[in-house]
Amino acid sequence: MSTDARIGFDRGEFERRVQVLQAGMAGTDLDAMLLTAAPDVTYVTGFLTRFWESPTRPWYVVVPADGGPIAIIPEIGAHLMRATWVDDLRTWDSPRCDAVGLDLLADAIRQVVPQHGCLGLPKGPEHGLRMPLSAFERLCDAIAPRSIGDATGPLRRAREVKSEAELACMRAACSSAAAAFASVPDILREARDLATIARRYQAACLLAGADWISYLATAAGHGGYSDVISPASGQVLGDGDILMLDVGAVCGGYFCDFDRNFGIGSADDASRKAYDALFSATEAGMAAARPGASAADLHRAMSAAIENRGLVPAGGRMGHGVGLSLTEWPSLMPGDETVLREGMVLAIEPALETSPGHIMVHEENVVLRGGGAELLSPRAADVLPVLN
Amino acid sequence: MSTDARIGFDRGEFERRVQVLQAGMAGTDLDAMLLTAAPDVTYVTGFLTRFWESPTRPWYVVVPADGGPIAIIPEIGAHLMRATWVDDLRTWDSPRCDAVGLDLLADAIRQVVPQHGCLGLPKGPEHGLRMPLSAFERLCDAIAPRSIGDATGPLRRAREVKSEAELACMRAACSSAAAAFASVPDILREARDLATIARRYQAACLLAGADWISYLATAAGHGGYSDVISPASGQVLGDGDILMLDVGAVCGGYFCDFDRNFGIGSADDASRKAYDALFSATEAGMAAARPGASAADLHRAMSAAIENRGLVPAGGRMGHGVGLSLTEWPSLMPGDETVLREGMVLAIEPALETSPGHIMVHEENVVLRGGGAELLSPRAADVLPVLN
Repeated sequence: MSTDARIGFDRGEFERRVQVLQAGMAGTDLDAMLLTAAPDVTYVTGFLTRFWESPTRPWYVVVPADGGPIAIIPEIGAHLMRATWVDDLRTWDSPRCDAVGLDLLADAIRQVVPQHGCLGLPKGPEHGLRMPLSAFERLCDAIAPRSIGDATGPLRRAREVKSEAELACMRAACSSAAAAFASVPDILREARDLATIARRYQAACLLAGADWISYLATAAGHGGYSDVISPASGQVLGDGDILMLDVGAVCGGYFCDFDRNFGIGSADDASRKAYDALFSATEAGMAAARPGASAADLHRAMSAAIENRGLVPAGGRMGHGVGLSLTEWPSLMPGDETVLREGMVLAIEPALETSPGHIMVHEENVVLRGGGAELLSPRAADVLPVLN
Repeated sequence: MSTDARIGFDRGEFERRVQVLQAGMAGTDLDAMLLTAAPDVTYVTGFLTRFWESPTRPWYVVVPADGGPIAIIPEIGAHLMRATWVDDLRTWDSPRCDAVGLDLLADAIRQVVPQHGCLGLPKGPEHGLRMPLSAFERLCDAIAPRSIGDATGPLRRAREVKSEAELACMRAACSSAAAAFASVPDILREARDLATIARRYQAACLLAGADWISYLATAAGHGGYSDVISPASGQVLGDGDILMLDVGAVCGGYFCDFDRNFGIGSADDASRKAYDALFSATEAGMAAARPGASAADLHRAMSAAIENRGLVPAGGRMGHGVGLSLTEWPSLMPGDETVLREGMVLAIEPALETSPGHIMVHEENVVLRGGGAELLSPRAADVLPVLN
């Protein structure tokens, strides 16, 4: 399952995960939960594959309120799933024109959810439904009169808190991205267009130990950039630009998600001042990141640090959870009163407007310990690095 | 939008796509279709981002039976969407605890779907629902009494046939993967464990021009391998192993999906014979790949070629569509009577059992021309390459 000797999960890790999920279900009317999305299935089973990229086949895991999980999956995944801790594996030949495993799935649900019981799916934020909607409708009919509830709460409370084994993966991901950031001066000596820089940056992450690179945003502009979600364009760097790379490298299935900013050739005072304000806002976010604080508290602390420098916080959230997904609950934003807990991993991500339509963003990854935030990403330079 | 000077889509490309979608809807009771998944949104709008990796925000595109598409998206994507051809862009601040854009979305749907009309979503194969299920339920209530239909048919018939601009992207993806396959002998001189080989192979794809690598399966074993969906493990290659790499490199948003097999040190007669049979089955699949043939016909041709060599075809399909997704309709399998059309891109992917629990797979990518299949991937060597 693991691609790196540093990374490994024993059976106890997964037993604990299911115990936490089941403890969460105990306070609800859910008799079981049905998971269809990659991070959820991976979380419960340890089944690690990039084959989720193919939308052809649905994959199902049922976690009953008591007892071990049941994996109902296409035969093509049987060999890999048999290598996990999951004892109850049921497979069907897939794809087939007439089958998406619904009979097996309905049987498994009927087995663990009483006739007037409730099956939970994660129906809330950070989730979709990774099976054909028509198949889901047929499933609901097949298991009636069982009701469908929302399993988002128990699921997010379990996934939000990371074990030391999960943290080891995330540290490895951070470490590969950081080594690649250290090579950016070398990359820039040979390439000045964003597309080539992005390709070489990703290659550097891989050669530094990332298993794969699931996310990279690349932006550049004078005094800031216009968005933080674009892939690299053919844009050529000019003197005075700020270059930003924001990476989601993956080790053992776990993401890092942090960025770095570089001045190109020179940097004006406004860019240096923005960088300083973001560095200080990140410090403020990390200082506020303690068990017992709320997600909104961190947003408040970062916004205040930016305003204290006389600058304007950018709209939107200023960070989020990270783990088996690039982004997870909670969101560091006004109104998200999630109480932070020890073991949560957060992207601390303050942003400010440098001018209308232009922003700058800093991002680091931390794990919450009893005493406060511990960095997983190495801290960015405290002044804007300017590269020639 | 493009990351490569070779790749570009003009406004006419997208207008034609929407015309084809609308021609498909004309034969149905659908008044509009709602798209939420990355490949569909990208197909209609040209909005290219890796930010889909973050499950936090839903993204909606409504394609009415007449008129231009409406994009209803989080504000964070507004800058990038404004660079596309889409004229009707509506945004909301996201994430917010109380909003996933449903009011805007319901308004747009009410605008283009009459009260007793029907909104289509792709509810069938190769699709899920990329928005929270609870939000979808609220949407259905908000637009009642409008009904919800299945838009899979018109959508797949449009996406299945590729334009020359799409083919240019896929050729670039194939070309990067092929260059990286050519470097495998060099990689093997420095690394013998699958994890390192996989990292270096991906880096080689990037340095050869791939924008990113969304899929790689890596397997090895004596006389074959046990599955074709696993990420690289720490397994160390041994003499006589067959190494298989199966890659989904991406250029301009479009995938390639093909593999290569290598003998390590030496190869036994059974492995050579299996390779030969797969090479000949691929030839048979390509020869059968003509407009007017069915997907099932290709499976039949490949299976027969394997059986003619006295070997046993492996279960499951023997190929599929490729495009904005790693896998698309149709499936080359018994029962899929999809009639092949000019412009379809297919992965031709015969597989056979070398021994119980072990298989070998070959894969090439072709586009169907009027006269038959034209390779997009360079053809594999006609005898098993053995590397030292």
